[in-house]
Amino acid sequence: MAKDKPGIPKGTRDFDPLEISRRELIFDTIRETYRMHGFRPIETPAMENLSTLTGKYGEEGDRLIFRVLNSGDFPSKVDDAEWQSKNPQRLAARISDKALRYDLTVPFARYVVQHQHHIVFPFKRYQMQPVWRADRPQKGRYREFFQCDADVIGSDSLFNEAEFFQIIDKVFSQLNIDVRILVNNRKILAGVAEYIGFPHKMGLITTAIDKLDKVGLDQVLDELARGGITVEALEKLNPLLQLSGSNDEKMAFLSDLLKDSETGTRGVEEVREMLDIIAVTPLHCELVLDLSLARGLDYYTGAIIEVKALDVEMGSLCGGGRYDDLTGIFGLNDVSGVGISFGADRIYDVMLALERFPDITGTFSQLLAINFGPKERNYCLPALENLRSIGVQCEMYPEPAKLKKQMQYADKNSIPFVLMAGEEEMKRQVFSLKDMRSGDQQELMLEQISDVLMKYIER
Amino acid sequence: MAKDKPGIPKGTRDFDPLEISRRELIFDTIRETYRMHGFRPIETPAMENLSTLTGKYGEEGDRLIFRVLNSGDFPSKVDDAEWQSKNPQRLAARISDKALRYDLTVPFARYVVQHQHHIVFPFKRYQMQPVWRADRPQKGRYREFFQCDADVIGSDSLFNEAEFFQIIDKVFSQLNIDVRILVNNRKILAGVAEYIGFPHKMGLITTAIDKLDKVGLDQVLDELARGGITVEALEKLNPLLQLSGSNDEKMAFLSDLLKDSETGTRGVEEVREMLDIIAVTPLHCELVLDLSLARGLDYYTGAIIEVKALDVEMGSLCGGGRYDDLTGIFGLNDVSGVGISFGADRIYDVMLALERFPDITGTFSQLLAINFGPKERNYCLPALENLRSIGVQCEMYPEPAKLKKQMQYADKNSIPFVLMAGEEEMKRQVFSLKDMRSGDQQELMLEQISDVLMKYIER
Repeated sequence: MAKDKPGIPKGTRDFDPLEISRRELIFDTIRETYRMHGFRPIETPAMENLSTLTGKYGEEGDRLIFRVLNSGDFPSKVDDAEWQSKNPQRLAARISDKALRYDLTVPFARYVVQHQHHIVFPFKRYQMQPVWRADRPQKGRYREFFQCDADVIGSDSLFNEAEFFQIIDKVFSQLNIDVRILVNNRKILAGVAEYIGFPHKMGLITTAIDKLDKVGLDQVLDELARGGITVEALEKLNPLLQLSGSNDEKMAFLSDLLKDSETGTRGVEEVREMLDIIAVTPLHCELVLDLSLARGLDYYTGAIIEVKALDVEMGSLCGGGRYDDLTGIFGLNDVSGVGISFGADRIYDVMLALERFPDITGTFSQLLAINFGPKERNYCLPALENLRSIGVQCEMYPEPAKLKKQMQYADKNSIPFVLMAGEEEMKRQVFSLKDMRSGDQQELMLEQISDVLMKYIER
Repeated sequence: MAKDKPGIPKGTRDFDPLEISRRELIFDTIRETYRMHGFRPIETPAMENLSTLTGKYGEEGDRLIFRVLNSGDFPSKVDDAEWQSKNPQRLAARISDKALRYDLTVPFARYVVQHQHHIVFPFKRYQMQPVWRADRPQKGRYREFFQCDADVIGSDSLFNEAEFFQIIDKVFSQLNIDVRILVNNRKILAGVAEYIGFPHKMGLITTAIDKLDKVGLDQVLDELARGGITVEALEKLNPLLQLSGSNDEKMAFLSDLLKDSETGTRGVEEVREMLDIIAVTPLHCELVLDLSLARGLDYYTGAIIEVKALDVEMGSLCGGGRYDDLTGIFGLNDVSGVGISFGADRIYDVMLALERFPDITGTFSQLLAINFGPKERNYCLPALENLRSIGVQCEMYPEPAKLKKQMQYADKNSIPFVLMAGEEEMKRQVFSLKDMRSGDQQELMLEQISDVLMKYIER
């Protein structure tokens, strides 16, 4: 057996208790907010049939899918000519028929189609599970990471978009991160493409604009020019990409500019209706209509959404949009949906950078009982059970080790209280309780200890 | 793109909201109980290096490991002779260097060795994650399933064993499942092997005894005879396998029987000390010393534990034991540990069979506001925000659909309350609240609605 120092695959991570407690804070906040708005959870398997995933993420995406090797005598299932070809793509398809999910959207579309007769529409579902991508690992980019999605499928009401803004607003204000929500609408972009005279170049235009943030205006205009957009058209586009002012001012400007485009006008109306619904219960954070927001994904047809942190340089913390035909790829047409996805790993990095995580003290264990030996241990055990019955997480040091070692255990594990009982305490039916933060030590009866701990966990 | 009816790989499952709510009840109960005893969570990646996993589960286990195909031009990394051999085992090792975890125990051992310098020992960790096995799927056996493990590593105190019995007892009594805990000790089995004169046949004896439950006494004795155990020895063994009476009676009997075996005597002492600690805070369920309990896994060296449901025929719902050298396989010796693992999927099946799951009504959404149109919707939205602020999960139907359709949505989604406001209610600043269970409808002010819902969620 190997005795090398063991490790894990690159791009994957172990999480220790501190990291888990911080991740749980993020997951719990997102989950609770989804639930507060009536979303219901589903889960799908880590492995999907390969045919479910391939062809859904573009050529580049297909290459990043982790394939699972078929069990048993897999080479015998491949004919000789194919085996000799050593062609990686074609062989992979022969020797693996399952793959790890690449995102939660395609498995969700598959789920909806597969279970369509048991689903009550509109279906508000959330799903928080890991996904896997064979991406080149780098800072902030992992091969295993969590997505936290919610979608409403089977309703084209703009109320759903408005509700997602409420959800985004609540999650980030609860996590104490200042953000700006950016919003645009694909129909406005289509109107703009019409307005500049290139309605058929919508794909090129969105792909190019999508990079504005990363590469800057000049390079975007260059790419559009190379793609066949005329100088005249670019001159009409340029000011739109830099449009400033309040949302109302932008809307008024666009409304006039796109009045001859049916699609563009519908886009403007959609944004207006959405903003009107949001205004009923105003957001804490700023929501900005940003014409340069495009999002690369093909399937969006209406609203597009992104969330940026104000106080730290980081990609989008949450994104989403409206798609009119996601389930069409699996044969169920005309089901409109809208959804968002929180990037838990990026939110984690932002909170770490801004030092927004609370102190871990008392998260996992609030009290350690010192083990002085069997008699003292047995004296403390019923007290611990009593504390647990009122919700106190507590533990007995498993063996009568040196006191110093036991105190270090409490200290290193951020346990705020230590319980001690020796000959004297046992005789008088009391306990000594030490507050590890202040160093204070008091002789108390069990009832008093319950009170102190109760107050601590309810703080 | 494929338009076939989409499906998922055999042996895997989708979970709908009802199933998730039931699974969460099980997971939450186990997690909370672990936490109440000071256990801390860790998580490890779904994929481990193949070398971490192979050779740890026996030949049969190795075959059941799901391997992940290397990305890129994997065939070019295999030399021609090897490629031509078409040998599945050897090729698999060349074209995949990662695999899905098969259990949580080996990844935990890897974790402890890898992070040994940052871990505070004794380390009490829990871990609840899915594992994958390429087993033949059948009723109750899946290719993706959850394990819920806890271990204490770096302490050989029998207090840890006793604490695990407390945890098992609490989990099952909270889930309202009547169980019996079976316990034995490998040292007693070693003593028995000595007593019957075959100390060197310990492996054969435990493997054979382990099947007693499934194949019956005759077949076990047969297997032992074929393995070279003499008729005389079997005659000494037979009554031990059928030993009855109270734990005290069994202990007295064994203590005498194994008095000449040093290991056996230590085993008896360990069980006695463990039972003494448990007696300090007595269990609700029965704990039975069962000499026929062996558990197949090689690495156990002390206590072995299994839990059986009393009211339904099902395999073990929880199992575990003491191992003196689990991390040795990764080069860290002499670290004793003890652990248990709850089988969430089996517990689920037992609860389903015994109808122990609570009604789902109100789990995901407690109130639906009927959407009569923009004005009525906007009148209700601040009320919903108000309810959410006191913890009520509620939702607005996204569009002004027919009332019947909206009521069906509430009904099918088990939403207990429906909120309505039309012209009349808006004028008088009230709402109509319908209780879907009783059919009662009342005109109430928002404050009164808060009271009704508050009472409902605190029920």
